[in-house]
Amino acid sequence: MTNILPVLDHAAADLPASLERLFELVRIKSISTDPAYGAECRKAAEWLVAELRSLGFDAAVRETPGHPMVVAHHDGPREDAPHVLFYGHYDVQPVDPLNLWDNDPFEPAVRDIEGGRRIITGRGTSDDKGQLMTFVEACRAYKETQGALPCRVSILFEGEEESGSPSLKPFLEANAAELTADCALVCDTSMWDFETPAISAGLRGLVGEEIVVRAANRDLHSGYYGGAAANPIHVLAEILAGLHDESGRVTLEGFYDGVEETPSQIKAAWDTLGTTAESFLGEIGLSVPSGEKGRSVLELTWARPTAEVNGIVGGYTGDGFKTVIAAEASAKVSFRLVGKQDPGSIRDAFRAYVQSKIPSDCSVSFHAHGGSPAIQLPYDSPLLTKAKDALSDEWSKPAVVIGMGGSIPIVGDFQKMLGMESLLVGFGLSDDRIHSPNEKYELRSFEKGIRSWIRILAAIASK
Amino acid sequence: MTNILPVLDHAAADLPASLERLFELVRIKSISTDPAYGAECRKAAEWLVAELRSLGFDAAVRETPGHPMVVAHHDGPREDAPHVLFYGHYDVQPVDPLNLWDNDPFEPAVRDIEGGRRIITGRGTSDDKGQLMTFVEACRAYKETQGALPCRVSILFEGEEESGSPSLKPFLEANAAELTADCALVCDTSMWDFETPAISAGLRGLVGEEIVVRAANRDLHSGYYGGAAANPIHVLAEILAGLHDESGRVTLEGFYDGVEETPSQIKAAWDTLGTTAESFLGEIGLSVPSGEKGRSVLELTWARPTAEVNGIVGGYTGDGFKTVIAAEASAKVSFRLVGKQDPGSIRDAFRAYVQSKIPSDCSVSFHAHGGSPAIQLPYDSPLLTKAKDALSDEWSKPAVVIGMGGSIPIVGDFQKMLGMESLLVGFGLSDDRIHSPNEKYELRSFEKGIRSWIRILAAIASK
Repeated sequence: MTNILPVLDHAAADLPASLERLFELVRIKSISTDPAYGAECRKAAEWLVAELRSLGFDAAVRETPGHPMVVAHHDGPREDAPHVLFYGHYDVQPVDPLNLWDNDPFEPAVRDIEGGRRIITGRGTSDDKGQLMTFVEACRAYKETQGALPCRVSILFEGEEESGSPSLKPFLEANAAELTADCALVCDTSMWDFETPAISAGLRGLVGEEIVVRAANRDLHSGYYGGAAANPIHVLAEILAGLHDESGRVTLEGFYDGVEETPSQIKAAWDTLGTTAESFLGEIGLSVPSGEKGRSVLELTWARPTAEVNGIVGGYTGDGFKTVIAAEASAKVSFRLVGKQDPGSIRDAFRAYVQSKIPSDCSVSFHAHGGSPAIQLPYDSPLLTKAKDALSDEWSKPAVVIGMGGSIPIVGDFQKMLGMESLLVGFGLSDDRIHSPNEKYELRSFEKGIRSWIRILAAIASK
Repeated sequence: MTNILPVLDHAAADLPASLERLFELVRIKSISTDPAYGAECRKAAEWLVAELRSLGFDAAVRETPGHPMVVAHHDGPREDAPHVLFYGHYDVQPVDPLNLWDNDPFEPAVRDIEGGRRIITGRGTSDDKGQLMTFVEACRAYKETQGALPCRVSILFEGEEESGSPSLKPFLEANAAELTADCALVCDTSMWDFETPAISAGLRGLVGEEIVVRAANRDLHSGYYGGAAANPIHVLAEILAGLHDESGRVTLEGFYDGVEETPSQIKAAWDTLGTTAESFLGEIGLSVPSGEKGRSVLELTWARPTAEVNGIVGGYTGDGFKTVIAAEASAKVSFRLVGKQDPGSIRDAFRAYVQSKIPSDCSVSFHAHGGSPAIQLPYDSPLLTKAKDALSDEWSKPAVVIGMGGSIPIVGDFQKMLGMESLLVGFGLSDDRIHSPNEKYELRSFEKGIRSWIRILAAIASK
């Protein structure tokens, strides 16, 4: 087994340069959901290709009907070395409302905050540019000290993760042989807390739907027509209010098909983590769990399905008041899935429910925004055990195996389409404000993240 | 009694110049709800003052804490001539969404449409610039033919009617003696149909409220927090969905206090007007009355109170999808009042209801946007009878006395604060698209509106 101490030392010494490379990537405004930023997404892909080529990867921008992929390959030290596929995404969330940012989201910087912590500020620093760069910089440390990587490494960087990954499945299908490795390494998750590394073994699935309810053929004066004409905001409010019953359960027919109770020993292990409703919600200014009654916040966010309205708009929303009855109103709704819930069935049940609530003289249209089932990874595979030990060594604290509320659809696709197990390791923190103003990444996460991948790659390479 | 034929003839001959003057006023972007247009509101007031001075009025722009008033006075032909106060408003509604307008809202023009009709297009042409100019042009025709007006005429033009008239009551109170006349003439209402003039005797009141529901202290990722953190859009949907019961009645406690059933002979008279749910709603692409069950559309819009959501917004509403749980969500809600419903009590009941639905870790703030009780004018006053005859003569069809769904708060203020009866005559049509894109005013309404005021002023002047 390679002596990794010089590699770790090199990573530490090279940190200022590593940071400068991350900043270059963060400055590129690769917002994938907004068509106005298409050229910036391509620029990010091209920047990554150049970076990987400089490390000796055979790398290329690969076209899709949407934003391009980055695919790169590097030989291992021997023919029989393990082959890993690393996945990350270079696209980022929109930045509105811009006025809530303390600093320019696309001008990253290292800033000192309370408690002696140092953070890297900017959109994408945590989700996912900072994370994917921990792996790239780990490869750099190997190359610059050993002249080689300990494993055969392939890389796939996506540019549509924040917009439902429409091109991903066709791309995996068309390039299955090229992309299949012994396992996948996915860096898009969080630590347990500031001190404790974590490996995620459960991921909720996701179904996104946008609905537009239409009533009159134009906006109406609420004085002339109020009380007689259908108001699409009322229809929408009825639909959304009816999604949950009084116990917090989702009311869609068959919604809980395929949802199993979490084993009691798993729940007991989670209970020992010390997370309470007060601690989990207190940090965001709340205190009362809003979902299904009688379940812990970890169970609610890791192991239970949800329905959430992510956006709503209709009628006059500017300053002042306008006594209008809108012609249409719309909402974006997402469902988090667990267990064996089927995304297609959930979507169908939602559409049938919505349709049943539409008055006969109104109409509704639906727009699908991504769908993926939940994932449950084995708790006891050799890959997971090696990674757990490597992380525990780096952080001087045992790594914990946790569930995760978010969705990383690609993990299911790797499993189903390429037959690959995934290892989900990331260095984000729950207060990184991903998808919100003032996103940040801990400098410590970036630094020790690079070192963690150096250790994990060495562990995977060892027999 | 003055021979009004030369006056009517002059108005007809002068129509092109009258139109050009209206166009000048419509070109001024006097949107009162949007602070960005404050200077334009003042410009409209100044334009009107100059216009009235050119007709011999003693006119002035009068300051308020908001947009200014225009007040003008003109002597009558004799000391004992009746004294009328004419009211209109120079402010207009916002024009968004601008892309739904076929023509620039602030570049008025006369256009030919189907059925040989000619319309004046532009924001405010019907509500209320075109209407108030019918009266100004009637005065002009008198002055240019007779050198005098048949009555003593005072004028009050407001610039905040579309934003809840916050300055109106204090202004009336401070200038009560100056503004009190024998009666008020208000031109902000509609005809019964294209052929049939109407006098409005019932006006619904209005209470406007904006609510902002706040949950977490920042926008959240729905993967991390979904299922545990309160979603303010859900809270808002519950509140709004609960405003009506299954029979379409408003659920607020005490909401129907002071609401009386419409006398059966009035309902019978309305039934003879031939308006059905099909005809009333068909024109706007709907067919099913949405409000209280078992009532005609005229009763629903003229004589029944309502709750309508005029606008809602929360979370991500741009292109694509963002899996966010918003920190806040807001809605603008208005109530139309009838009978003796008390605006203050309705507002209190709404706020108490909303507060009762807010989870203990969330909060809500309220913003009042105007409040006025309903008005019911006598069906048989001498003023109304004179106006009815004058209108019937001009339009060669009997004028009808109708209810009105909209709210004109000033009519109540004139009654309560100045002890004046109001005459509500207007020449709008239900398809004028006031408050919507493509607002228009019939050229015929403008032309015959001027002639109608010439006749009504003569009728009021006669003993």
